[in-house]
Amino acid sequence: SGLVHIKNPYLDSMEEDVLYHLDLGTKTHNLPAMFGDIKFVCVGGSPNRMRAFAQFMHKELGLTGDGEDLADICAGTDRYAMYRAGPVLSISHGMGIPSISIMLHELIKLLHHAKCRDVTIIRIGTSGGLGIEAGSVVITDMAVDSSFKPRFEQVVLDDVVVRSTELDKDLAEELLACSKEIPDFRTLIGHTMCTYDFYEGQGRLDGALCSFSSEKKLEYLKRAYDAGVRNIEMESTAFAALCGLCGLKGESSCSRLR
Amino acid sequence: SGLVHIKNPYLDSMEEDVLYHLDLGTKTHNLPAMFGDIKFVCVGGSPNRMRAFAQFMHKELGLTGDGEDLADICAGTDRYAMYRAGPVLSISHGMGIPSISIMLHELIKLLHHAKCRDVTIIRIGTSGGLGIEAGSVVITDMAVDSSFKPRFEQVVLDDVVVRSTELDKDLAEELLACSKEIPDFRTLIGHTMCTYDFYEGQGRLDGALCSFSSEKKLEYLKRAYDAGVRNIEMESTAFAALCGLCGLKGESSCSRLR
Repeated sequence: SGLVHIKNPYLDSMEEDVLYHLDLGTKTHNLPAMFGDIKFVCVGGSPNRMRAFAQFMHKELGLTGDGEDLADICAGTDRYAMYRAGPVLSISHGMGIPSISIMLHELIKLLHHAKCRDVTIIRIGTSGGLGIEAGSVVITDMAVDSSFKPRFEQVVLDDVVVRSTELDKDLAEELLACSKEIPDFRTLIGHTMCTYDFYEGQGRLDGALCSFSSEKKLEYLKRAYDAGVRNIEMESTAFAALCGLCGLKGESSCSRLR
Repeated sequence: SGLVHIKNPYLDSMEEDVLYHLDLGTKTHNLPAMFGDIKFVCVGGSPNRMRAFAQFMHKELGLTGDGEDLADICAGTDRYAMYRAGPVLSISHGMGIPSISIMLHELIKLLHHAKCRDVTIIRIGTSGGLGIEAGSVVITDMAVDSSFKPRFEQVVLDDVVVRSTELDKDLAEELLACSKEIPDFRTLIGHTMCTYDFYEGQGRLDGALCSFSSEKKLEYLKRAYDAGVRNIEMESTAFAALCGLCGLKGESSCSRLR
C-alpha cells in the first residue's frame, strides 16, 4: 500500500495523538491536509542547515514565492525545526540516538496520520571520515555499532531488543548514480559506524577525558576501516532500525567534514 | 584546589583547543577573561528555556542593564545556546545522553582553560514523574539506569567502562533546604532513572512502536518506584558520571511536567 507501518496496537484507539516534540497533534492540526502529499523527508542534526536545505530545494524545484522566508512548522517548540519545499520535508534531529529517536517516532506517526504513501527518508548529516578524502559523501549501505556489527540494541522497558540496521540498497545505488552526474562530487558506498559518544567513543584525543593511547586509537580505527567502515556519526543505527521496522525506504548519506 | 580535573594527558600539550560545538576556542577567545569568575553552571535541554532562566537570574541577582537582551555566547553554532548572568552560566544540552555528553566535554574543558574554581553545576531539566504530584521537583540523590542500578556504561573505543553516578549529597540537602523557604513549592529527594529512549524505554503506549501491554508497563514502573525512582529523564547518568570524574560538584533537579 505504500503507507507507513505503525506497530502500536494502541494508537488508532487514542482520542487524540499529541506529537509533543513537534508541537503538532491530530486535534489541533489537519495533518492529511498539511502533509498528505509529502514524498521525501530529509533529516539532519542542525536546524539552521535543515532550513538552508529546504531553501535550496525550494529553488531547485522552481517553486513560486520567496524560498528565503520559509516558516518553521514546529515554531512552537525549540526541540526540532521543520520546513517544507513542495513534496520535501526537511527536519532537524539534534545530536545522538535518543534525540533522533524521539523525532522519528513522532515523524512516523505524523506520516501515518497524514496517510502519506511511498515516502523516502534520507539522513543528510555530517560525519567523521575514515581513510577518505575531506568533502567526500558516504552513502551508507549498512549502519554498524561500535563493534562493527549491523545491529541496534533498543532497551524496551528493561529488556534489550536487537534490531536490524539494513538500509535500502536500491536507493543507495540510485543516489550513487545521481551523484555521478555532478562533476567533481566525491561519493562512495560504505558502512557507517554509529557511536553514543563523540569523544571517547570515536577515539578523539581532545575530550575532557581520554584514557587510551594514540596507538590504541589508530589500531581501533584501522579495525573499523578493515570491517568496511568509511565514516562515523551518531544516529545511523537508530535511523536504520526505526525506518526499517516502519516500512520507510531509508538512506543515510553523510559528508565528511574533517 | 577547586579546579576541574581534566583526565586527558594530551590536552595541555595541544597548541589550540577548539570547542567545536560551542563555537569557542583557546586561540580565538580569551577564556579566562570571559569565564574565569563563573561559579555556577545550570544546564537544561531547551535553548529557549535556558535563555529564560538566564534572564530570571539576571533579575534575581539585581544586575544592571536589560536582562531581556542577553546575547547567546554560542551564537556562531546552533548546536547549543549559552547565556551568562553574573557568575551563573546557563547552557542548553539538547535531548539524550550523547547530546549532553558532547556539551559537557567541551564545558569542562572551557572551565579548565578559564581556570575556574569551585564551580557548582546543576541540571534543571524536565522529566516524567513516578507516583508524585505534577509540578513537583525531584532533587536527585542518585541517577540510575533502566535496570535501576547507579551506573553509567560508557563505550570507550570498543570497551565498555562502568562509571559511578553518585551526585553531591550535601548539595542535594542544601537545595532541599532552600526549596523549603518558598511557599507551596513541592520538592523531594529521590532517585532519577535515565533512559536512552522516550517512548519504548519509558513505557509509553503512544510511540510509533509499542510491543508491551499496559500491564507490563505498570509492572515495570512499579518496580522502578519500589527501587526508589521518583522521576525519569534522559541525561542524568552521563551528567553524574562526567561531573563526578572531573571533580565538579553536581546536582540534578528536574520538575515533573506531566
